[in-house]
Amino acid sequence: MATDDEVLRQDIIRKALHALAEIPYDKTPPYAGVVIHRIVKEIVGDIDPYEELKTIYNQRALDLYDEMKEIVAQSQNTLETASRLAIAGNNIDFGFRSNSEHIDLHEAIDETLVRPLAINHLKQFKTSLDHATSILYIADNAGEIVFDRVLVEEIPDYRDRVTFAVRGAPILNDATMEDALETGVTDIVRVIDNGCDAPGTIIELCSEPFIEELKEADLIIAKGQGNYETLSDVPHNVFFLLKAKCPVIARDLDVRVGDLILESLAEKKLHLAMSTG
Amino acid sequence: MATDDEVLRQDIIRKALHALAEIPYDKTPPYAGVVIHRIVKEIVGDIDPYEELKTIYNQRALDLYDEMKEIVAQSQNTLETASRLAIAGNNIDFGFRSNSEHIDLHEAIDETLVRPLAINHLKQFKTSLDHATSILYIADNAGEIVFDRVLVEEIPDYRDRVTFAVRGAPILNDATMEDALETGVTDIVRVIDNGCDAPGTIIELCSEPFIEELKEADLIIAKGQGNYETLSDVPHNVFFLLKAKCPVIARDLDVRVGDLILESLAEKKLHLAMSTG
Repeated sequence: MATDDEVLRQDIIRKALHALAEIPYDKTPPYAGVVIHRIVKEIVGDIDPYEELKTIYNQRALDLYDEMKEIVAQSQNTLETASRLAIAGNNIDFGFRSNSEHIDLHEAIDETLVRPLAINHLKQFKTSLDHATSILYIADNAGEIVFDRVLVEEIPDYRDRVTFAVRGAPILNDATMEDALETGVTDIVRVIDNGCDAPGTIIELCSEPFIEELKEADLIIAKGQGNYETLSDVPHNVFFLLKAKCPVIARDLDVRVGDLILESLAEKKLHLAMSTG
Repeated sequence: MATDDEVLRQDIIRKALHALAEIPYDKTPPYAGVVIHRIVKEIVGDIDPYEELKTIYNQRALDLYDEMKEIVAQSQNTLETASRLAIAGNNIDFGFRSNSEHIDLHEAIDETLVRPLAINHLKQFKTSLDHATSILYIADNAGEIVFDRVLVEEIPDYRDRVTFAVRGAPILNDATMEDALETGVTDIVRVIDNGCDAPGTIIELCSEPFIEELKEADLIIAKGQGNYETLSDVPHNVFFLLKAKCPVIARDLDVRVGDLILESLAEKKLHLAMSTG
């Protein structure tokens, strides 16, 4: 997507393979993503190949905003419905899709509203939301953040308690400050960026102010696979909302590809500690 | 499959990525295969991780030999039926399968006998077989060579005209001299090896005697994807018998994944010359 120039493409492939050969094995997939995308930018220039896709999906999601608000309003459990919609939005992921693939957002919503959550820590999520003073909502993709907005608006006193975090620079179709502005998320809560161009939250690469926000938060809501991969070992109170889209993530979560996840990291750690004796 | 030692595995991955980064882009996939497998052998030692699988499939194919002979004998067009069986044998390919996958050979035979050939140069094949003085049959995989034997035995005067070539050293589950001995192919025709450990026929890496055989042959029968990838540009009279198993090969042949192919290289070149004006 970044260039049609065969010579540049070959150069990128060679440099990326050499770089991948040197990546320490304790690094996460989003770290490998950063390394590769930085090589692309170094060779092609400071480009954002997903810019148009991001604008398209921001707009398509905005077109569904009123309908989603109505679905939540009509539902029995508004927090669950809004959480499910936030997970539905996680279908807008061009990290694993071809950029020409059409994503049917209505179908994604319909499916996500009825399919059982393969991991369902909604009760713990509700309790955490009730008690948290400071909530950090770490977004994933453009377009998806409109779905996130619907969930944020179901959190009592969200204007005072919620900070919404986006990526510090374009990477894949991940949401940046530009997308937060485009979708009006900036109108309802404080939005910060993490100072980093990774498709996840690689703490060592994030800005000092963002790391402070992370430490201060009583509750972190982390969307999508990239945040799951990078925040699974942190000492914070994290809830992961995502759709398991690749076999490696699905295996790690002990679910099937396509499954919907609302997981408490604390519960996960407890479960692991118990199962290993 | 070569080792469970994590340290060795990591070393292999790093060295393989560096090596892949340096491969010239005009090299074929089997060339990349050789490079990677040589790294594995350099690090793990001179191993043959597919040895057991090869013996199992040699035996399973031998168990079907009488049945295949009967199928050919009962058929209307014995050359076509034997050619189809040779293509059916091409399912025994652990280059793209997991080593734990069970291959149903009866199912492969049944499917290959009825499915239309997506590329069908049987008439030209028959003519070439009628006129050739020296036929070089380049085999692909262990087990599959029993299916090849059934085809060879349908070639008139095969004892005098056919030379059967296997790989010079173990690579994937490709057939070597050991497999030719195990399956009795050595009892019916002269068998040579190509002096090379590639999963295909990379002429620059083959032995001088083999290259001489290649030049001397009036007709070359090349089995499988690896031979297709490495013999598509040679000036010889080649017929490819294979099942298109990966999207890249299928696209190159302009067929679908799973399609059965009996292609004359001369016809292909003629077609290409005509279509490009």
